[in-house]
Amino acid sequence: MASPPTSTYQYFLVTYPAPYVAHVQINRPEKLNAFFEAMWLEFRRIFDTLSHAPDVRSIILSGAGDRAFSSGLDVEAAAQEGILTVTEPDARTTDVARRAQAIKRHVEEFQACISSVEKCEKPVICVLHGYSLGLSLDISTCADIRICTSDVQMAVKEVDIGLAADIGTLSRLPKVVGSFSWVKDVCLSARVFGADEALRVGFVSHVESTKESALGRALVMAKLLAEKSPVAVQGTKELLNHARDNRLADSLRYTGVWNSAAIQTKDVRDAILSGLQKRKPTFEKL
Amino acid sequence: MASPPTSTYQYFLVTYPAPYVAHVQINRPEKLNAFFEAMWLEFRRIFDTLSHAPDVRSIILSGAGDRAFSSGLDVEAAAQEGILTVTEPDARTTDVARRAQAIKRHVEEFQACISSVEKCEKPVICVLHGYSLGLSLDISTCADIRICTSDVQMAVKEVDIGLAADIGTLSRLPKVVGSFSWVKDVCLSARVFGADEALRVGFVSHVESTKESALGRALVMAKLLAEKSPVAVQGTKELLNHARDNRLADSLRYTGVWNSAAIQTKDVRDAILSGLQKRKPTFEKL
Amino acid sequence: MASPPTSTYQYFLVTYPAPYVAHVQINRPEKLNAFFEAMWLEFRRIFDTLSHAPDVRSIILSGAGDRAFSSGLDVEAAAQEGILTVTEPDARTTDVARRAQAIKRHVEEFQACISSVEKCEKPVICVLHGYSLGLSLDISTCADIRICTSDVQMAVKEVDIGLAADIGTLSRLPKVVGSFSWVKDVCLSARVFGADEALRVGFVSHVESTKESALGRALVMAKLLAEKSPVAVQGTKELLNHARDNRLADSLRYTGVWNSAAIQTKDVRDAILSGLQKRKPTFEKL
Amino acid sequence: MASPPTSTYQYFLVTYPAPYVAHVQINRPEKLNAFFEAMWLEFRRIFDTLSHAPDVRSIILSGAGDRAFSSGLDVEAAAQEGILTVTEPDARTTDVARRAQAIKRHVEEFQACISSVEKCEKPVICVLHGYSLGLSLDISTCADIRICTSDVQMAVKEVDIGLAADIGTLSRLPKVVGSFSWVKDVCLSARVFGADEALRVGFVSHVESTKESALGRALVMAKLLAEKSPVAVQGTKELLNHARDNRLADSLRYTGVWNSAAIQTKDVRDAILSGLQKRKPTFEKL
Amino acid sequence: MASPPTSTYQYFLVTYPAPYVAHVQINRPEKLNAFFEAMWLEFRRIFDTLSHAPDVRSIILSGAGDRAFSSGLDVEAAAQEGILTVTEPDARTTDVARRAQAIKRHVEEFQACISSVEKCEKPVICVLHGYSLGLSLDISTCADIRICTSDVQMAVKEVDIGLAADIGTLSRLPKVVGSFSWVKDVCLSARVFGADEALRVGFVSHVESTKESALGRALVMAKLLAEKSPVAVQGTKELLNHARDNRLADSLRYTGVWNSAAIQTKDVRDAILSGLQKRKPTFEKL
Amino acid sequence: MASPPTSTYQYFLVTYPAPYVAHVQINRPEKLNAFFEAMWLEFRRIFDTLSHAPDVRSIILSGAGDRAFSSGLDVEAAAQEGILTVTEPDARTTDVARRAQAIKRHVEEFQACISSVEKCEKPVICVLHGYSLGLSLDISTCADIRICTSDVQMAVKEVDIGLAADIGTLSRLPKVVGSFSWVKDVCLSARVFGADEALRVGFVSHVESTKESALGRALVMAKLLAEKSPVAVQGTKELLNHARDNRLADSLRYTGVWNSAAIQTKDVRDAILSGLQKRKPTFEKL
Repeated sequence: MASPPTSTYQYFLVTYPAPYVAHVQINRPEKLNAFFEAMWLEFRRIFDTLSHAPDVRSIILSGAGDRAFSSGLDVEAAAQEGILTVTEPDARTTDVARRAQAIKRHVEEFQACISSVEKCEKPVICVLHGYSLGLSLDISTCADIRICTSDVQMAVKEVDIGLAADIGTLSRLPKVVGSFSWVKDVCLSARVFGADEALRVGFVSHVESTKESALGRALVMAKLLAEKSPVAVQGTKELLNHARDNRLADSLRYTGVWNSAAIQTKDVRDAILSGLQKRKPTFEKL
Repeated sequence: MASPPTSTYQYFLVTYPAPYVAHVQINRPEKLNAFFEAMWLEFRRIFDTLSHAPDVRSIILSGAGDRAFSSGLDVEAAAQEGILTVTEPDARTTDVARRAQAIKRHVEEFQACISSVEKCEKPVICVLHGYSLGLSLDISTCADIRICTSDVQMAVKEVDIGLAADIGTLSRLPKVVGSFSWVKDVCLSARVFGADEALRVGFVSHVESTKESALGRALVMAKLLAEKSPVAVQGTKELLNHARDNRLADSLRYTGVWNSAAIQTKDVRDAILSGLQKRKPTFEKL
Repeated sequence: MASPPTSTYQYFLVTYPAPYVAHVQINRPEKLNAFFEAMWLEFRRIFDTLSHAPDVRSIILSGAGDRAFSSGLDVEAAAQEGILTVTEPDARTTDVARRAQAIKRHVEEFQACISSVEKCEKPVICVLHGYSLGLSLDISTCADIRICTSDVQMAVKEVDIGLAADIGTLSRLPKVVGSFSWVKDVCLSARVFGADEALRVGFVSHVESTKESALGRALVMAKLLAEKSPVAVQGTKELLNHARDNRLADSLRYTGVWNSAAIQTKDVRDAILSGLQKRKPTFEKL
Repeated sequence: MASPPTSTYQYFLVTYPAPYVAHVQINRPEKLNAFFEAMWLEFRRIFDTLSHAPDVRSIILSGAGDRAFSSGLDVEAAAQEGILTVTEPDARTTDVARRAQAIKRHVEEFQACISSVEKCEKPVICVLHGYSLGLSLDISTCADIRICTSDVQMAVKEVDIGLAADIGTLSRLPKVVGSFSWVKDVCLSARVFGADEALRVGFVSHVESTKESALGRALVMAKLLAEKSPVAVQGTKELLNHARDNRLADSLRYTGVWNSAAIQTKDVRDAILSGLQKRKPTFEKL
Repeated sequence: MASPPTSTYQYFLVTYPAPYVAHVQINRPEKLNAFFEAMWLEFRRIFDTLSHAPDVRSIILSGAGDRAFSSGLDVEAAAQEGILTVTEPDARTTDVARRAQAIKRHVEEFQACISSVEKCEKPVICVLHGYSLGLSLDISTCADIRICTSDVQMAVKEVDIGLAADIGTLSRLPKVVGSFSWVKDVCLSARVFGADEALRVGFVSHVESTKESALGRALVMAKLLAEKSPVAVQGTKELLNHARDNRLADSLRYTGVWNSAAIQTKDVRDAILSGLQKRKPTFEKL
Repeated sequence: MASPPTSTYQYFLVTYPAPYVAHVQINRPEKLNAFFEAMWLEFRRIFDTLSHAPDVRSIILSGAGDRAFSSGLDVEAAAQEGILTVTEPDARTTDVARRAQAIKRHVEEFQACISSVEKCEKPVICVLHGYSLGLSLDISTCADIRICTSDVQMAVKEVDIGLAADIGTLSRLPKVVGSFSWVKDVCLSARVFGADEALRVGFVSHVESTKESALGRALVMAKLLAEKSPVAVQGTKELLNHARDNRLADSLRYTGVWNSAAIQTKDVRDAILSGLQKRKPTFEKL
């Protein structure tokens, strides 16, 4: 395989554990992988790069260290400066409408950074372990497939710092889980929930006993996806995300137009012939 | 705490079992809490009042008596007069289009009364026990969190009186439960389903063995919600309901605008500082 | 009962196992009920006919033979001719845009054929057994209620032939199942899943040990639906499908208009009086 | 004709200049018909009443006096109290989120009052003359047909008091007029525009030289509408408003369901037979 | 040019006045081209055929004879049988819900027939002259470009036979014309409007003095469109119709996917090279 | 006034002709201001910068030189390289699906660059003169207010290079102009249209005889907008754009939330007091 993107990052560790597979680790374990602004800006750069990297076909996202996927927003940092600052606002920004504009811009940029996981053309498998609080939910609801360890402690924590979660959890959770009663329960109460509950309501699709085995399972899945036609895999992600947000007739129409180009790929012929001939196909980069 | 609204109602019992917590009971146990028109009009008045009452932050909704949350529409009463009357229609209303208009106005008003639970700015926890039929489903799908007892007998009963449920169940059930096969099964067949099934498909988020313990659990939850920032809790309800009905991009945009005002609350600062200082915050009325 | 439609079909077996109940079997067991174009055209004709047949009130859909509901698209046949052909395209159709148009027309017609199950005014109960791959998912997600046998082997297989599923699975599966993580898992990986998993995520609402018992259960359900008011049953299917694709307010408004005519049926009076008098109503054909 | 509703109102004059025709006049000419809160609450009561009054089939809305349809919001009154008050806010309401909630409730109620014209089941013809500023646009965009006098002076005035118009003009104007460049021009600049411009861009459909002749024309139109089948007229208003807000396929579907009841009216038969027999039909009250 | 489709039709005259140009005439001039059911069924067959005919790139639609594009529905025929029949309904169909279903099916099929003009992949230029009433509006709002003669007499006539127009006018007119006041005026009043008014509000884009000159202009336009790349022209029709019904972001997204195949056509290269070389390109059939 | 952003740009000239007013000129007059990729990337940087620049409250957009706003895409440059290249595609990119992906990414980035005018928080007044072809329409439909000179020659030119316009014209034009017949006429035919026609259909809101007078008028308008409350002006732009894409109820709801923060600005008090005191207010930067 040709060399995948090798830039190093400040707050994340990006490795390539198998051909066409990238592994992104949130890498601030000494602070339970808590996020501050420079981190989510870098986070977006990584996923935007992977989205277009021809050497990457599937991505694993996890948190470095034993204790946490992420404890969420670094509240202490946020309390020092920015829109959640607990110090008195200065005179320049005391007009409510002007502060509202600054907040809106900030929230929209923050949302866009986290949404880069969803916009990424390649499937993203998220492995949640340990503390997976607040922003962890915003991030993981953007991923395509969620796996967790049996010790995971998850919570939509924002209510406990006086605000409605605004980086995506409240928008996406009702669409990735089928029980609206459960969604409201955990979002309104900010209570911790664990692996069993997450599996029962369908928030995760697999539970593994340890972080190691969870990463192992994610790697098996990521390799499986990376061996398939990238035209088919990436088209499937696109069409499923489109379906979630659109009505049936629109979704079917969009699908027809999408495949009017995609089906012309030679991957179809290669895959069918390989199937008929019982051999394993390989596919050109995309 | 200042005094909450103390009006008494004819068909409902409204009490305040804890600070900032209201408990609304459907109070016609001798008729299994079956509804007739005057009741759903009063029902709306109650929830509209609680929605704006600054002394209320969370609401429990249940049915008085041992036997039923509600057996649904009082069919005997409905058969006497109104749009389901089984007597011969009089001459004045025999024109189909004119009767259609009267029916449409009636259904829309009835829908609006029941929807008051969903429109209520405060979270509503619904406790279902015993017979919970027909209109019970229309009502409980409007609530935010559903709890039931292990003896509950639920059914979308309307098909058995010759009509498609029109007070909200068919519109909301596919959005509060993830299994469309199950939704169609119970709505088309009108069959009774119980607590286990309701939990498995995610219709309820908790099952308790008795009505008493279910109310106990609801009270614990209601108190928990009532202690949190009402700005955060009510914003969370609003944004989750918005998300259910809107596409992702719209939901994120709406969230940004919502929080551009909400984040300016001092509850955020109070909650963060309390968190850092490990003490319990209190919040101003909303 | 008057005679139901008795046309015979080439690739399907249509029988009437009980009053007002039709049973459609995919009837190419020697090829695992794999589909080619003539079959899906006939499939539409059958469901369009049943949709308007006054002697039919509920429909069972299954696959003939012991081994498969359907193995999906007949890939060998598709590889010979048509849009997936593996032979070199001829000169006339080498312009990408012109081929795209041909593909789009083909996909849209194929989608419309399969969607006839969803458009059918009567409820359709789908019984899945054995191999239930690829197109089986497109078809079964159109049905109203899904039952499977414990030996079923299901897979969204299209990725393995190099394409994103375009006959409806990717559009409908996120709307019939609540766990988006699971939906993406099975659609991206093309892996086989079985009855337990299908029940857990809500894809099916019942599992039976054998094909015989699954068909037996489907027949009990179909008979139950066939005994109820067809105005109520068909209205319920219509309103639930409308709800899936529309926002709450639109769904409630549509419901009010729908019932402004439907409630004027004498089925309501008959059903209510029968209920009060503890006897079983019968209903006119629709 | 039986007697139409005869309640008298404090700020409006409601008369019945012809059978089935109501005329609502904003009646505070000494203040250029400027609105304050009690007025818009009464305004809603009037239109809600007329909406259901069987003796009313079309409505004219105009402003009393020679000088103005309405100068808009009574800014002096608004500056004394309420959400636009220019006095210092008191301590109780200084929390931004809590004030935001109060404002949102206020705006939504105000919007609902003005929207009563649009929700009114009967067509409303609005006659604009003289000063027709600010709230006049919010109101008149809710009406079905707009007529103006050649001396009219219209403006979307809100920007000049520091706010984006929020009672409906910004939501409705882009949907009642086809030139988005013109809509933005007048909404951003708050400049006055007159009858010629209003006719050219399609905001009004007729211009008359005097208020008297404009009211005369409105009366001719109102009488014409009042002589037609109310089933047909009110259905047409409903379906056009539905079309404005919905996609084509939804609109056609809704229309089919609407007319499945409406076409069963005997008005169709009466109208067709009258047409064939060249005589004028009369229609039952609706 | 190869031979275009030459089937003859019973109620329409289809000719080919220029290469790649079809002309469809409603051909029942002795009855002012009034429609009955067999006609609209044939109408759909014609437009479905032309939509896929590679020898056709643009279509003119007009009415045969001097007096009318079409007087609309043949009311006398409709009064004899069908859903508008003025004779007493027979016993079999007296149940309101069952008649509603029959009406709904009828209206939906009728709508689908007329919508075939809009669904047709090729642009349709509609020439309106003389009486152009009722159904003429349903039909012409489906066309892409409208031209009329100065003597045209148009009216949305349905209110005068007691019903709200349900074959498309009420759904499409608000989307093809920018003045909602004018749309409501003509739809509620059923009044006749002429060429000047139609041009002013943008319903037609050209007015010609005679039917002959209008057809001449239509032919010039049709020939112009037929000489351009059919990939470009048909894509433009598709994307404009998509834009009318969708939000901006969806429309842009759909456009990107559409052109990802369409831009790969060699028509682009041919058109660009021809442009650079100042010669006229020719394009392959589509 | 503090200094506005002073960066110089390669292909655009940005000046500040009045306080808070920016003027952006497309500055490649020797090539009729034709665009190539580096230009639209710079174009976005400019509008993104102006969007957040507190010293800018309104923007004029025009083309340098006497001859053209812009002749559109630089087709000669595009024919050399990129997705429209007329040279033979190289082997690496011959797979249709892989080229489709590259095209889709290119189109989406191009769309995003042009859409920066619409996303810009400040109102943009576009002055069209001379040749205003192809991309000129994509750009100008993003602007808020359009003014043209009487000599302007506009055309949606893309069909003539074999493609459906994909940078926004087909998505936006049906929403900025009310006559769908005219929109389709000019988009399908690629014909030139002038100032009179543009004014009649509402594409522009003003016509001036010369470029100088058009710029003069634009400056007067821009200064007028710059003197008003930026909270009010920018809120108005936001809410009008939201209204164009959303249904009425959503638009009203969004407006209420928007103004719940915006109305708390002191601009309202300042504007009202200034109005009552007949003096001119000044507003803080936003």
